[in-house]
Amino acid sequence: MTEQSDPSIRPGETAVPLPDRTDAGVYFIGRIRTPWPTRGECPRRGDTANGPICTIEVDERWLDALTGIETHPRLQVLYWMHEARRDLVRQTPRGSEPIGTFALRSPVRPNPIASSVVVLVERSGVILRVRGLDCLDGTPLIDLKPDRGGTAAA
Amino acid sequence: MTEQSDPSIRPGETAVPLPDRTDAGVYFIGRIRTPWPTRGECPRRGDTANGPICTIEVDERWLDALTGIETHPRLQVLYWMHEARRDLVRQTPRGSEPIGTFALRSPVRPNPIASSVVVLVERSGVILRVRGLDCLDGTPLIDLKPDRGGTAAA
Repeated sequence: MTEQSDPSIRPGETAVPLPDRTDAGVYFIGRIRTPWPTRGECPRRGDTANGPICTIEVDERWLDALTGIETHPRLQVLYWMHEARRDLVRQTPRGSEPIGTFALRSPVRPNPIASSVVVLVERSGVILRVRGLDCLDGTPLIDLKPDRGGTAAA
Repeated sequence: MTEQSDPSIRPGETAVPLPDRTDAGVYFIGRIRTPWPTRGECPRRGDTANGPICTIEVDERWLDALTGIETHPRLQVLYWMHEARRDLVRQTPRGSEPIGTFALRSPVRPNPIASSVVVLVERSGVILRVRGLDCLDGTPLIDLKPDRGGTAAA
């Protein structure tokens, strides 16, 4: 099932045919604004201590859902990595042997959903200013939750 | 926009009209097997130390994507809370004032995606035995990733 004719696949990478249809639908509930317009410019990992402040713009429809969010200093942000292909099951990170997609946090995965923990710096209405993201400017937001994870770095 | 005629809404809870269409599609990539057939029986929070072993059954299509996953003792599991309504923006947890959906980890949210950290006990092909889940038996799986979060409890 390797797509050897696909020039975007590196040696050792494997694609599978995707299912004919999806099983559930996701609403984009806002947009994330970051300083990084291309994937190559994104940092490898967000930095909640020293990274730049980024902006989460939640759609007005969901304003009431933000009630009380400012009581949580750390939030889990789920977002949709809209530029990533979804059919690779083995990937070859730079300088690595091929490895399974579920053993990586690569954006390339069947459901390109990322999870990041951020520090909430300020909320103003539907605008959240946060620190700790590493995603593309314009990334669609799909969820916000209080972080459950105690003392973890991110 | 409060749906005062909806008997499933508690006092103080608010619903909004959902958007006319979803923006992206999710594939269910497997199923989660747990001892809990109803929401009332699910524990409030998974326990990676003392919780029961649960089973994640990944669809055969994604077998190669599991390559190397057993090198990660802790995994992040994303799953779809398929029984939850999606239109509440304020919720009233038992014994609490109404609070915004994004200030809660309730299953009820615009995109009912849960994130749990589990300990991987054993892998056999597409079957993972893990500890730390708290979801319904039969819950659809949508992603597996190495846990990034250091020493957090869950």
